[in-house]
Amino acid sequence: MQNVLDYIRTHRERFENELIEYLRIPSVSAQSSHQPDMQACAGWIASHARQIGLRADVIPTAGHPAVLARTFTRRTLGRPHFVVYGHYDVQPPEPLDLWKSPPFEPRRAGRRLYARGASDNKGQHFAHLKAVEACLRSGAGLPVDLTFLIEGEEEVGSRSLPAFLRQHRRELRCEAFVISDTGIPGLQHPALTYALRGIAAAEITLTGPSRDLHSGIHGGAVDNPALALCQLLAQLRDPHGRITVPGFYKDVRPLTAYERRELDRIPHSDAAYRRFLGAPRLFGEHGFTTSERRTARPTLEINGLTSGYQGQGSKTIIPSWARAKLTLRLVPDQRPSHVIRSLVSHLRRLCPPTVRIEIKSGHGGEPYCMSPRHPLAQAALRALQAAFNRPPVLMREGGSIPIVNDFKRILGADSLLLGLALPDADAHAPNENFHLDCFERGIALGACLWPELARAC
Amino acid sequence: MQNVLDYIRTHRERFENELIEYLRIPSVSAQSSHQPDMQACAGWIASHARQIGLRADVIPTAGHPAVLARTFTRRTLGRPHFVVYGHYDVQPPEPLDLWKSPPFEPRRAGRRLYARGASDNKGQHFAHLKAVEACLRSGAGLPVDLTFLIEGEEEVGSRSLPAFLRQHRRELRCEAFVISDTGIPGLQHPALTYALRGIAAAEITLTGPSRDLHSGIHGGAVDNPALALCQLLAQLRDPHGRITVPGFYKDVRPLTAYERRELDRIPHSDAAYRRFLGAPRLFGEHGFTTSERRTARPTLEINGLTSGYQGQGSKTIIPSWARAKLTLRLVPDQRPSHVIRSLVSHLRRLCPPTVRIEIKSGHGGEPYCMSPRHPLAQAALRALQAAFNRPPVLMREGGSIPIVNDFKRILGADSLLLGLALPDADAHAPNENFHLDCFERGIALGACLWPELARAC
Repeated sequence: MQNVLDYIRTHRERFENELIEYLRIPSVSAQSSHQPDMQACAGWIASHARQIGLRADVIPTAGHPAVLARTFTRRTLGRPHFVVYGHYDVQPPEPLDLWKSPPFEPRRAGRRLYARGASDNKGQHFAHLKAVEACLRSGAGLPVDLTFLIEGEEEVGSRSLPAFLRQHRRELRCEAFVISDTGIPGLQHPALTYALRGIAAAEITLTGPSRDLHSGIHGGAVDNPALALCQLLAQLRDPHGRITVPGFYKDVRPLTAYERRELDRIPHSDAAYRRFLGAPRLFGEHGFTTSERRTARPTLEINGLTSGYQGQGSKTIIPSWARAKLTLRLVPDQRPSHVIRSLVSHLRRLCPPTVRIEIKSGHGGEPYCMSPRHPLAQAALRALQAAFNRPPVLMREGGSIPIVNDFKRILGADSLLLGLALPDADAHAPNENFHLDCFERGIALGACLWPELARAC
Repeated sequence: MQNVLDYIRTHRERFENELIEYLRIPSVSAQSSHQPDMQACAGWIASHARQIGLRADVIPTAGHPAVLARTFTRRTLGRPHFVVYGHYDVQPPEPLDLWKSPPFEPRRAGRRLYARGASDNKGQHFAHLKAVEACLRSGAGLPVDLTFLIEGEEEVGSRSLPAFLRQHRRELRCEAFVISDTGIPGLQHPALTYALRGIAAAEITLTGPSRDLHSGIHGGAVDNPALALCQLLAQLRDPHGRITVPGFYKDVRPLTAYERRELDRIPHSDAAYRRFLGAPRLFGEHGFTTSERRTARPTLEINGLTSGYQGQGSKTIIPSWARAKLTLRLVPDQRPSHVIRSLVSHLRRLCPPTVRIEIKSGHGGEPYCMSPRHPLAQAALRALQAAFNRPPVLMREGGSIPIVNDFKRILGADSLLLGLALPDADAHAPNENFHLDCFERGIALGACLWPELARAC
């Protein structure tokens, strides 16, 4: 093990430069103009995996290609097999004017590396690749068979992944998936995440008149779709922060006393957190702590509003239509399809006859929960202790990793969520960054993890 | 008077050809590339006024020049003086591909004349000039002194007009302004417009967290500015279409029974109007007809909504901020500054402490009302009856004509609004047109008007 850690220390700077090269590729999966970048990015990471001794292929899917990279030519009989999952696609970088440096020109400042995709997710899965390189090149070797599955559609709902998993079911059969795509409270608190929220998305469009109307000539005679939208959406949440869609909380599994105690161990200060967010005040569902609200309670968010004139000055119109993008975060045992169905019928019931309503449901992902008492979970906790030299905490994550459900459903495998991003990594936001200590500890974790997991199998 | 009407009949075709010549000049005030055309157009109409016996000058302003043309060398003592207002500038013609013939190559089809500026406003004030020509050349003469004020910045907000009015205050002192720049319900319904709505604009921005946040990581712990904005704006209107800003209706002068009866005479079908707007249903303040809602009742409209991600697909964020552009249409005796003050304090009171609110007030314009019982208004109604040979209707207009307030404020003069445009004249739109019967009746109106007004002074 010492060889491995020495190798990591020796090659630290090269590792960082390689990550920077990877981050330069603007692999935005949501925007069709970045199609060639997606191909280039998949090619780059496959070729890099080959350089460190893996067998790697770029595999086409119905959408963006996926990359499979294996440490073996043929599986060793009786040897445990784990799959490390990551995604090379990134969120759209907009709004560009809020970035202090261009999102695809990585910039080091102190111990931070700023770039779109730095923590979500290139930096995190790249750490695992570097750990494997260290195990192999230092001569220590690996006590397990490993496959890297790095997809290109995570930020657009992993549309092609289920079919891909079914197609590669045999090659991907494994003890568990290892995923570093979540966060930790801080460098002092490495963490195993045992539960994730699910997600359900919808887009609501209200249409009134067939075209924008002069607000002087016609104003007063016809409903304003933007105001109708506000009045519709306003009814979805009560003053206590509760979602008012009928039956919304019906399937929510209540937190146990044990869970609430464990979640309470995670270091947190409401005052510091408020300052970090820059919000005038924290706000959420009455009767729950901030940590519980963020991870163990469902939410409804407006992600975007669009209507009428948005330019400089004013334009005196009644806009023809108004649109809102919504996402709901779900917790065990809520089902995205049920929740969307309730939302749609609730909105249709509330919608006034003065506008037409159109609701498109978007991507959905089930919430996830794995017992923290599982032997593999316990082994992961030991590896965390070794890599960070700190007692790890047990966490729930507020974000969604829908593929964790696909792994469970299609391959029957649980996922060990060993996130490396700090709370201020600003994933999905301008100035996304990855702390280089996280990168280094992550590589060490990758090295410590495989012997621990091998023993637990 | 018969001489005058004979002269008009005899010279009808020449009048049309002259108007066509006027319409060929692409006097688009908003586009700097048309600067030379603006000069040419002002020169053309001044020179034309001189040809028919007026003393005309092109007068520079800080923006586009204005034209003053007088029927007199020196004012006759004791003789009433009226000012006819018009504007030689026109709206931009874009989108050009929607025009059936080029906007500055006037085309006659049936009794319609198609060209940018045909009804707004060249055709309308040119009718008054032709009426004056007929009075002077037929030997009938004029019982009043007349000044034509034809400006070149109406379509860009008449920026230089207030200063111009102050500078020419003495020459423009008059009994009233006569303005033909509005519409009539149809050729069977000549109209005097006696009231206009005012306007007040505001832009509201709510800010929550200092940046867009990942809705999975932080969702539940902090308010969503887009939802907060919806909940705030939703409270501005009740289910009966009433604005709920305290005191909003306090200064609204109620419609008299006479006014409601007169407004009811204007031909209108809710079903046909709904089809024309393409809206699923009409909606407005309970207890008022559609015509009253559009012209005699105040409104609050959202003109635009902006928040978060508006592109393709979805982006799972809590947006940092959300913004709405609002305009309110005001009626006598509401004051824009009072209304904005009430709105601002109401919004501040309603705004939750979880977001910061910023309110910018925009442009404002006072509503306008001239009593239809005023002797000059009654005289105008008689002239309409004579020129159209139909009983005229009394109208209110839902839009704003800010210059009418300038005339009132700076010169203390009321305005007689004697519009000539049909509802399908498509002012500001492609295929703008002017009905040649409106042109002819308009010339007759110009001829009948001055004796009636002279008698009423």
